[in-house]
Amino acid sequence: MRNDRQKGKKTGADRAIRADNAFRPKGKLKVMFLGGVGEIGKNMTAFEYNDSLVVIDAGVSFPGNDMPGVDVVIPDISYIVENKHKLKAVLLTHGHEDHIGALPFFIEKLGCKVDLYGTKLTLALAENKLVEHDLQNKANYITVADKSVVTLGDFTAEFIHVSHSVAGSLAICLRTPVGTVLHTGDFKIDYTPLGNEIMNLNRIAEIGKQGVLLLMSESTNVEKPGYTLSESVVENTMNKLFAEAKGRRIIIATFASNIDRVGMIMDLARQYKRKIVVTGRSMLNYIETACRVGHISVDKNLIVETDQLANLEDGKVVVLCTGSQGEPMSALTRMANGEFNKIKIGSNDTIIISANPIPGNERDVYNVINNLYRLGALVVYSRLAEVHVSGHACQEELKLIYTLVKPKYFIPVHGEYRHLKRHSMLVQQLGHKQSNVIIPELGDCVELDRNTFEVTGKVAYGNVMVDGLGVGDVGNIVLKDRLTLAEDGVLVAVVCVGKSDGKLLCPPQVVSRGCFFSGDVNSFETIEDVKRIIAAEVPKYVFNRILEVDSLKQSIQRTVKQYFKHKLKRNPIVLSVVTEI
Amino acid sequence: MRNDRQKGKKTGADRAIRADNAFRPKGKLKVMFLGGVGEIGKNMTAFEYNDSLVVIDAGVSFPGNDMPGVDVVIPDISYIVENKHKLKAVLLTHGHEDHIGALPFFIEKLGCKVDLYGTKLTLALAENKLVEHDLQNKANYITVADKSVVTLGDFTAEFIHVSHSVAGSLAICLRTPVGTVLHTGDFKIDYTPLGNEIMNLNRIAEIGKQGVLLLMSESTNVEKPGYTLSESVVENTMNKLFAEAKGRRIIIATFASNIDRVGMIMDLARQYKRKIVVTGRSMLNYIETACRVGHISVDKNLIVETDQLANLEDGKVVVLCTGSQGEPMSALTRMANGEFNKIKIGSNDTIIISANPIPGNERDVYNVINNLYRLGALVVYSRLAEVHVSGHACQEELKLIYTLVKPKYFIPVHGEYRHLKRHSMLVQQLGHKQSNVIIPELGDCVELDRNTFEVTGKVAYGNVMVDGLGVGDVGNIVLKDRLTLAEDGVLVAVVCVGKSDGKLLCPPQVVSRGCFFSGDVNSFETIEDVKRIIAAEVPKYVFNRILEVDSLKQSIQRTVKQYFKHKLKRNPIVLSVVTEI
Repeated sequence: MRNDRQKGKKTGADRAIRADNAFRPKGKLKVMFLGGVGEIGKNMTAFEYNDSLVVIDAGVSFPGNDMPGVDVVIPDISYIVENKHKLKAVLLTHGHEDHIGALPFFIEKLGCKVDLYGTKLTLALAENKLVEHDLQNKANYITVADKSVVTLGDFTAEFIHVSHSVAGSLAICLRTPVGTVLHTGDFKIDYTPLGNEIMNLNRIAEIGKQGVLLLMSESTNVEKPGYTLSESVVENTMNKLFAEAKGRRIIIATFASNIDRVGMIMDLARQYKRKIVVTGRSMLNYIETACRVGHISVDKNLIVETDQLANLEDGKVVVLCTGSQGEPMSALTRMANGEFNKIKIGSNDTIIISANPIPGNERDVYNVINNLYRLGALVVYSRLAEVHVSGHACQEELKLIYTLVKPKYFIPVHGEYRHLKRHSMLVQQLGHKQSNVIIPELGDCVELDRNTFEVTGKVAYGNVMVDGLGVGDVGNIVLKDRLTLAEDGVLVAVVCVGKSDGKLLCPPQVVSRGCFFSGDVNSFETIEDVKRIIAAEVPKYVFNRILEVDSLKQSIQRTVKQYFKHKLKRNPIVLSVVTEI
Repeated sequence: MRNDRQKGKKTGADRAIRADNAFRPKGKLKVMFLGGVGEIGKNMTAFEYNDSLVVIDAGVSFPGNDMPGVDVVIPDISYIVENKHKLKAVLLTHGHEDHIGALPFFIEKLGCKVDLYGTKLTLALAENKLVEHDLQNKANYITVADKSVVTLGDFTAEFIHVSHSVAGSLAICLRTPVGTVLHTGDFKIDYTPLGNEIMNLNRIAEIGKQGVLLLMSESTNVEKPGYTLSESVVENTMNKLFAEAKGRRIIIATFASNIDRVGMIMDLARQYKRKIVVTGRSMLNYIETACRVGHISVDKNLIVETDQLANLEDGKVVVLCTGSQGEPMSALTRMANGEFNKIKIGSNDTIIISANPIPGNERDVYNVINNLYRLGALVVYSRLAEVHVSGHACQEELKLIYTLVKPKYFIPVHGEYRHLKRHSMLVQQLGHKQSNVIIPELGDCVELDRNTFEVTGKVAYGNVMVDGLGVGDVGNIVLKDRLTLAEDGVLVAVVCVGKSDGKLLCPPQVVSRGCFFSGDVNSFETIEDVKRIIAAEVPKYVFNRILEVDSLKQSIQRTVKQYFKHKLKRNPIVLSVVTEI
């Protein structure tokens, strides 16, 4: 390909764009942001031109502390469902959860078969997710790679290899009737990546030269000056740690999805004549998948079962596990808590946590580290050594891509508002016109052609919450209730009255959870007080021997809440049940 | 003092230690760790020799996500209460919440008057806390400063000025019958602090030369190589930002307790001919307190009321406020949400967040930043510029103190286990014997004299939780309930049966909170199912016309839980109330 270009030959994609330039578009391109902007996670963007609709990515995000009990959050895909007759394809930039995790919910809701495009590894990971929901037959899997070009209705998509923290990552160049759109996906520029396949900067330069109408570039690390370190830095550190750990057992926790890093660790193990024990379901799944698609090859003799650990000297073993985020049920957390029967941590263990804590996970991660130290282990983590590098581009890398592409319009993507804003400021420093930048908010529909570029409206958007088997059945009221329950507990008052006269048939009953400590000297007294208060309320709502049930319920809730607030400065949820017999 | 020393004169403290050396101690020194080790916060250490008991600090910590509804956490002070007849003094190193916040609870529980030692500012802050609980008369306030020496039973305490993020911070040198203990308190070494009073390194060097039995040194930043930047770096950045913000309104959020930084900002405002508006209760309190004790002086003309903002040009104003941690009710958060009526954020605002997010607060802080950007403001925070520096010593500073003091024994304090462990590794690199380091856990009692140094037992310790007005009445069961309530909500089943025959008097009633979304199509059906399940359980527990109430209750809870788990993959708390009439 590179040779072709040096000889001045045109590729298919090049010819396509020439044809574009001759074509006079009748409509505008719509770009709709269903996720991934103004927030971290659930990336999903839709591109529509007349009767052609293409979606890039379908990711989940993970709930914050303000969403107790919610498992994952997915985008609102109503707009796609309503326009599914136009849908040509879902293009996947890479296999991370925040880019493919919503696929099962998306495909189920669509109710029709979908064409999925991605690299071999990405599609295999996507298929794994669909298998979990028994939906694997609802997708056509179309494998693409660096330089692949496909036609999707009025669009042509070209895929470009990029470096990122999962193998098989792509940027996407979408040729549209109004001009070329380049979407970077998640990327970093790594001149010495593991596997030696460098991001195809030449092709990006060439596309830039041909003219790009719109650049959509990721913004995760825009606050960081300079360059992101190469993955080979991690390899160097690991090599040093392996050398230092002679005679000691090595335990490494990392992101299962960083399959190149996992492969590198396996290579080091072979080199240092150590066997590998793999623990953690997701670690096993990723390795199995990466082997299946031929991305890595694993020497069967290298891997041993956990049971065989007892027969191996510490200096002959590497344990590769999950739990780099301090996840409560993960292998590493259980080891740290002394709850992992087959691997007991001690002073002959060197434990490497090859990851940064994702914001919000710090306390969990540091608790794991504290407990590993307590058990006598040597613990190496990102604060102490270069055992992890980011998969996202820093300022100088973002500037390079912008400069190569030099687009007419710019939309920063993949970040909270502050990231998008800083990215917009960055490109303005490079001479980009402020009026030709849009910082999108969730749900925004941007319409553009060669002359106009504006937000023209909103499509349905928001957080659709998945809780157990229920999709979207956790509303804001429920979340608010759960937060209150968590803060101050619940108290239930039960009253039985006679139908004929509205009189109490027995003393009110009161049960509570999370309100007060059962051994508290005040709790008995408090409950007796509450019972008296309730009993005193009942006659107030009896008129002509008939009880006004709803008014009594409200009154009980109000008075009991007031009592709690006054006496204990707490604000439990109060429920009342009134039974007439 | 420095001159005295250069001339070879001995101070009172020097003489005291000479006397010590001649004295043959009968007992051992006990050091008890009631807080601050193995965790961040609630610092409190007790020192006991025969009939003399001295406590350093009495702090709170703030609850994690695993303690919903808990306001603050205080140390278990049972040991001090039991030995209060021995208590000579509480020595306060500085005025941060994690060092003085537990004083009201401590003094109330002790039930007797306490001698409090600290700098003028620290004591004023401590008194403020006691006033809130109407306990200000339960303490004698004894002001000390750099070089002060006081006798406390068998102990002599000397105070040494250190730099930290609150003014008036002290290290404490405790002379005991078995030898000298140096406790660093929280410190950094700042050669160019605001106010120009440099940590008294000369005195520490001198004490070190005289011989120190035990060094207790803080460990917060032990993972960071190099030196912590000087507070004057922040001044330089602020100066630059003030110069750049000509004609723009400046809004600065910082820690109210960093009173030197607040004073510096006021000086800059004067210099740039801007008036200052102060918002946020704690900011006002700290400024008022620091003025009262003469630590800063505020030009009355400089400060204007929020109401006067409308009359002032943007370029003539600095707003100084709280909210640097994204606290929901703080001034800055309300401004970011557009809920602060008197200050509306716009594109002519430069907002400086002069703080780092404390781990756990990241999401809140970044939400505030996102919203400020959305309103068009320019936002400057620690990721982008040097607008904040830490108040704690990094590795090179810790090495300097250790090297000056060269103690026989070493105990790392003020940190999670990982910090203490790394600090212990650091001093071993400097040649300290491993057997002469103890990494304390909460509640440990370390006994030592010139020949022995060991953990000999535990005193009562733990997290005493303060929730509303209740101190210590939130137990682990309650916390667990609250967490479950938060995850999956609560469901209450109410059954009324006849006393005479154990038969249902009316259909069971079911109420729930946080279980399912009220608009959910399944919720009605689910509740009807639950009612049927309950109704079917009742006859199973009637024998000889008598209902076995407790068994029925348990059975209802079990069956309803099973049903939920199976049908909805949720696990709400189920409460049952059975009434016999």
